[in-house]
Amino acid sequence: MTWSRSEKTIARQAFDAALKRELHELMQEAKEIAGQIKQPSDLWDLQEYLTQRRKEIDHKYNYRYSHLTQVFGRLLYETRVSEDELRGFSEDKLKTIRSLAKFLAEDAA
Amino acid sequence: MTWSRSEKTIARQAFDAALKRELHELMQEAKEIAGQIKQPSDLWDLQEYLTQRRKEIDHKYNYRYSHLTQVFGRLLYETRVSEDELRGFSEDKLKTIRSLAKFLAEDAA
Repeated sequence: MTWSRSEKTIARQAFDAALKRELHELMQEAKEIAGQIKQPSDLWDLQEYLTQRRKEIDHKYNYRYSHLTQVFGRLLYETRVSEDELRGFSEDKLKTIRSLAKFLAEDAA
Repeated sequence: MTWSRSEKTIARQAFDAALKRELHELMQEAKEIAGQIKQPSDLWDLQEYLTQRRKEIDHKYNYRYSHLTQVFGRLLYETRVSEDELRGFSEDKLKTIRSLAKFLAEDAA
């Protein structure tokens, strides 16, 4: 799939916004979890949780054009991007993105 | 080096007390660091710090009799155990422990 200049702009914006939201969510979550640490095992639970979330986020937010429809498919499924934010993508891209989101939803059900 | 029954009791107590203190310190530290998270890089700094401290603690608190004088040498150097807590160890063990603590102090200077 080729990405036009305007699609690239939309993609970058939607991608960055989703990543920013996810990181801010995790920042709040980390504060809450840390605030509730009562014993050493809670500390290691936090360490493992952050390590696992970091890997997951690094893996999920892969800004390569060859991967972007998959990335947005997952973000749409996770409601981390809205269809509104993807407005301006070609119909074939939106179709691929929606169908992956649908697949993930059915897979999780 | 062989460890008498009473030395083993003293060792276990001093070891557990030092570990408990270090973990409680780290719990407080993690709460403080998490409370000050302002941007995503702070989050990953916390994740890296906890991962590194976990490795270090796992490595440092190695309760094998063949390693215990080294362990206590380091803990004494770090003032995580006091000479008082080691009272009852044989003089040769104390000498080894003190000399390792001294070596580490000089090495760090």
